[in-house]
Amino acid sequence: MLNNETMHAAVHRYIAALNAGDLEAIVALYAENGSVEDPIGTPPHQGHAAIRAFYAKSLAIKLEVALEGPIRAAANEAAFAFCVRLHWQGQDRVIRPIDVFRFNEAGKITSMRAIFGPENMAAG
Amino acid sequence: MLNNETMHAAVHRYIAALNAGDLEAIVALYAENGSVEDPIGTPPHQGHAAIRAFYAKSLAIKLEVALEGPIRAAANEAAFAFCVRLHWQGQDRVIRPIDVFRFNEAGKITSMRAIFGPENMAAG
Repeated sequence: MLNNETMHAAVHRYIAALNAGDLEAIVALYAENGSVEDPIGTPPHQGHAAIRAFYAKSLAIKLEVALEGPIRAAANEAAFAFCVRLHWQGQDRVIRPIDVFRFNEAGKITSMRAIFGPENMAAG
Repeated sequence: MLNNETMHAAVHRYIAALNAGDLEAIVALYAENGSVEDPIGTPPHQGHAAIRAFYAKSLAIKLEVALEGPIRAAANEAAFAFCVRLHWQGQDRVIRPIDVFRFNEAGKITSMRAIFGPENMAAG
């Protein structure tokens, strides 16, 4: 079973990379065949190339990301609530997802699922 | 696809039932063949009888439960961070999980997974 510390560290690196707009640092957190479903219910992005394309689009807008409360980790999964502030179409916006990461034994993310709905998006 | 409002309401009923120690109200939120994995990595409790036995044990101690931040819902799932305060073995304790509920089309919980580790448990 994966060390919780490894998962906590990966989440912190993820948040830092989003804030830095560091695309390659984000992609490096994922397993080669990892998948991103963001938000859940939309078609997943599978594999490094698709994941890179997805985050490249997200990072085209400057994001300010902050954890809301402690990271929760157990077994091979971590969940965390966070807040994303961005300026889009002339307006400040806030999105507040909970992401769930699943990890392989090497500590790479095999599955990311972002859970949020319209109720979690607001003018900021 | 399930209405987000239905999922939000179910989470609020869940929190209220935990606070009220209302075992049957909790069980009623679950589908007949629903499962509870709390925390993830432990053997799931499947079906109403097993779910009732699990919560009966939890509710043997008076719990004070409060949401931490907004409920997130999308597709057929809801996630929420919360805080559980309890008095156990002569000590006040706090546990801070993130739960993920998956729902069927009837709005009943088919799967509950509680994500928390030792880092999310503290003396309160």
